[in-house]
Amino acid sequence: MNRTELIGQIRNKRSYLCVGLDTDFDRIPKFLQSRPDAIVAFNKAIIDATKDYCVSYKINTAFYEAMGLKGWAAMEETVNYIPSTHLKIADAKRGDIGNTSAQYAKAFFETLAFDAITVAPYMGADSVQPFLEYKDKWTIVLGLTSNKGAKDFELQKTDGQYLYEKVLKTVSSWGTPENLMFVIGATQAEEFTNIRKILPDHFFLVPGVGAQGGSLSEISDKAMNSDCGLLVNASRAIIYAAENESFATEAAAIAQQYSTEMSQYFS
Amino acid sequence: MNRTELIGQIRNKRSYLCVGLDTDFDRIPKFLQSRPDAIVAFNKAIIDATKDYCVSYKINTAFYEAMGLKGWAAMEETVNYIPSTHLKIADAKRGDIGNTSAQYAKAFFETLAFDAITVAPYMGADSVQPFLEYKDKWTIVLGLTSNKGAKDFELQKTDGQYLYEKVLKTVSSWGTPENLMFVIGATQAEEFTNIRKILPDHFFLVPGVGAQGGSLSEISDKAMNSDCGLLVNASRAIIYAAENESFATEAAAIAQQYSTEMSQYFS
Repeated sequence: MNRTELIGQIRNKRSYLCVGLDTDFDRIPKFLQSRPDAIVAFNKAIIDATKDYCVSYKINTAFYEAMGLKGWAAMEETVNYIPSTHLKIADAKRGDIGNTSAQYAKAFFETLAFDAITVAPYMGADSVQPFLEYKDKWTIVLGLTSNKGAKDFELQKTDGQYLYEKVLKTVSSWGTPENLMFVIGATQAEEFTNIRKILPDHFFLVPGVGAQGGSLSEISDKAMNSDCGLLVNASRAIIYAAENESFATEAAAIAQQYSTEMSQYFS
Repeated sequence: MNRTELIGQIRNKRSYLCVGLDTDFDRIPKFLQSRPDAIVAFNKAIIDATKDYCVSYKINTAFYEAMGLKGWAAMEETVNYIPSTHLKIADAKRGDIGNTSAQYAKAFFETLAFDAITVAPYMGADSVQPFLEYKDKWTIVLGLTSNKGAKDFELQKTDGQYLYEKVLKTVSSWGTPENLMFVIGATQAEEFTNIRKILPDHFFLVPGVGAQGGSLSEISDKAMNSDCGLLVNASRAIIYAAENESFATEAAAIAQQYSTEMSQYFS
C-alpha cells in the first residue's frame, strides 16, 4: 500500500486508527479458548467488528511466537484475513546486519503479506536499508518509544541533542516519506511538537494510547499534518474490551469511539 | 546452561567456538535441496560434524522466518537436536516494551528450548529485564556490532563517550556476568581492549570472524579473561565450506581449524 492509498483510506474514514492484534491466548474469552482455532477465530471476529473504524492492523509478532509453530500459523492466517484496504503492520522490531535484515524483509514482505514492519535502529544504515528496497512497503523505525526505558538511551543527549532526535534525522536520510515512518510513543506528548518540526512530512505510528495512558487529543493537536501523518494504535483497550460473548461488539464500540474522536480533529 | 557449566565445556574442549546456523535454502548443497527436510538434514549433518570442536550453536532466526511456517518448524527441530552440552543461542535481536519482551522471552526460553537470546538495547531497561528473569538463561545484548552501520549510532559520542560504551555500562547494571553477555563484533578489534576494561568479567559473543573478516588472534589476545570470556562465532565460513556431498566433512575441517587455533590461546 503506497502513501496516496493510505492517505485516501484515512480521508475516506476520517480515522487514523490502527488496531493492535496483541492476541494473548490467556486473555481471549474463555468460550473461545477450547476451539483449536481460538486465536484466529478471535482475530477474525475483532477484524470483522472493527474494520470500518480503522485503517490499519498491527500484529505484534511476540504474542504469536510465544505460541510456537501454531502461533506462527495463526499470524499467517490473520494477516491473510486483513482486508487489502487496511495497512498490515508487522510489529516485529527486527534489525540485523545487511544480509540478515534482507532475510527478515523477505520473511515479512514476501513470505508473509505485510505492508510494513517495525525496525530497531541501533545497528545503523545497513540494518535498515534492505527493508527500504521493497516498493510500496513501509519501514517503521523506532524513534521515541512509549515505555519507561526510553529514558535510558533514547532520551540521553548526544552532540547536544537527544539520541532519538539524532535517530530521526539520520534515518530519515535513508528513505523518503513514501517508504519510511517512525514509531513515536503517545506517552511522550511533550516531545511531539519538536518531533513534527524535525520531520514535517513523515507518518508516525503512535502506540501508547489506551492501556499505556497517552492522550489522543494532545497527540493529534501537536502532530497532525496536512496529510494526517499519524497512525494511532490501540491494542488492549480495544481487543480486550470485554471477556464475554460480546467481546467483538464491545471492541467495535471502543474502536468507534476512537474513530469518532479522530474525525473531529480533521480540518 | 549456567556460567560454571559453560566455562567447564570451554576448558574441556579448549575451544570457544560458536557455529552459526544461518541456513539459507539457496546455499545448501543441491543434492539436499530436493529433500522435504532439506534444512533440518543440513543442520543435523553440520551439528554432527562440528560438535566436538565447538561449545555453542547460534541459530539466526531471520533465515528460518524467511521460509515461513516450515522454517519455524525447522528451527524448532534444529534447536531440539543440538546436544545439551552446547549453549543454544537464538540470534533474534528482539526487544520491545515490557509485556511484549516477556512474550519474546517465553517464545525462546519456554516454547523453544534456547539457552540464550540476542536482544537490542535501544528501548532501555524494561525491554531487556523480562529476559533476565529466567534462571540459567542468558540475555546477550548488542554492544558494538560488526557491521558498517555501527558507525551511525553505536560509535557516536554521548556524554563524551561512545553510545556503545554507555550501553555496556548501563545494561551491565541490569544483570550480572551470570546472566548477561554482550555482542561485540570481531571487526571492531581496535575497541576490544577498552571494552574488556569496561567489562572485565562478562562473556562476549563475537561474530564477524570468517566471512566478515575479523581476526581471531587479535580478538583473543585483547579480550580473553581468566574464564575465557569469549564465544567466537563463525557461520558462513563453516557451514558453506563446500557445496558438494562432503560439505559436512569440510565444515568439520574448518571448525577444527578454528578450535585448534583457539586451543593455543589458553594459558
